[in-house]
Amino acid sequence: MIIDPSENSVKDNYKLLIGTVLPRPIALVSTISNSGIPNLAPFSFFTAITSKPPTLCFAPALKGAAAEKKDTLANIEETGEFVVNIVTEEIAEQMNETAGDFPSDFDEFLHAGLTPEPSAKIKPPRVKESPVNMECTLLKVEYIGDGGPGSGALVIGEVVQFHIADSLYSEGKIDTGLLKPVGRLAGMEYTTLGRRFVLERKNYERKK
Amino acid sequence: MIIDPSENSVKDNYKLLIGTVLPRPIALVSTISNSGIPNLAPFSFFTAITSKPPTLCFAPALKGAAAEKKDTLANIEETGEFVVNIVTEEIAEQMNETAGDFPSDFDEFLHAGLTPEPSAKIKPPRVKESPVNMECTLLKVEYIGDGGPGSGALVIGEVVQFHIADSLYSEGKIDTGLLKPVGRLAGMEYTTLGRRFVLERKNYERKK
Repeated sequence: MIIDPSENSVKDNYKLLIGTVLPRPIALVSTISNSGIPNLAPFSFFTAITSKPPTLCFAPALKGAAAEKKDTLANIEETGEFVVNIVTEEIAEQMNETAGDFPSDFDEFLHAGLTPEPSAKIKPPRVKESPVNMECTLLKVEYIGDGGPGSGALVIGEVVQFHIADSLYSEGKIDTGLLKPVGRLAGMEYTTLGRRFVLERKNYERKK
Repeated sequence: MIIDPSENSVKDNYKLLIGTVLPRPIALVSTISNSGIPNLAPFSFFTAITSKPPTLCFAPALKGAAAEKKDTLANIEETGEFVVNIVTEEIAEQMNETAGDFPSDFDEFLHAGLTPEPSAKIKPPRVKESPVNMECTLLKVEYIGDGGPGSGALVIGEVVQFHIADSLYSEGKIDTGLLKPVGRLAGMEYTTLGRRFVLERKNYERKK
């Protein structure tokens, strides 16, 4: 099956991406507007980038037929700050409650039953119930597309503070089994980790 | 546990990212140099971005103490083209065979037992054994960091052609269960999909 995306609808191209780039980690992103209204929303177009400095990015799509900015993106452009909270099995349902298309002054923390905790270095609160919070400052917003429906932004941030639950952390390593991260699949589907296996990386020498 | 990344080693910051941004999809990226040498290498700092145009990005770190460009990045900067091949349970071991630090003229396809198939619109071959190939043209390389160890690049590409195995595809949707994608964890660990579950997205109306 060969599909030319230029002959496919925007929605069908979206389905091909969410149905094949799998499984996806979930960033539950907390922000706050300059006027002090907090926001919380999940994003699964999300990846780490570099370790020095530690950076990551996520991609908020522009919303609907009017291709509006989501509150998350608007807040980050206003303040230059956000927190990425990792989504675990324990808070998957609460995460989903933050995913509606709410008015800007709606409190997703309260609605979802999640607790805003003050961050150490930035203004947006972090999510107390998530065992991993990464406080980030904005490096860059890269806009992709023509600004119409299906376009979006790539928000690139630097992690300036990690908060890790003590129970998960030992000598610099995270216990993945205890973390129980949730992966995003297509449609309304999610997944836990499955059968875990090790593939030994061979250390081939690079010929000079 | 609060960790200030500026007081942490590059390696320890890397461990925190790979131990928490989970589970990660894997892009097995095929490229070819201007002189015709193909390359194949896996990357798990990888995400989709937008659906119009369909775009994705992945982040090749600069290599080792000398912070050299990997062949994948060098080839993409030379040619502006690459293929993202999705990694499934069936080809996980072969994918791992492509991950060594090989000389530029080493043929990872041959070494791993994977078959280069001609692409439809670009020069780099795709991987026949992967049921999803996305032919991409380069939109932008965004460099992150000071160019030393731990720095990297974010390669942003547009999908110009999808190849999807017929058996996975029905009316625009991909059968995730049949795809059997492999997720990257920390260290040398990988995971299959686990317990799949649905979270219904409520359609809250946005107040005007």
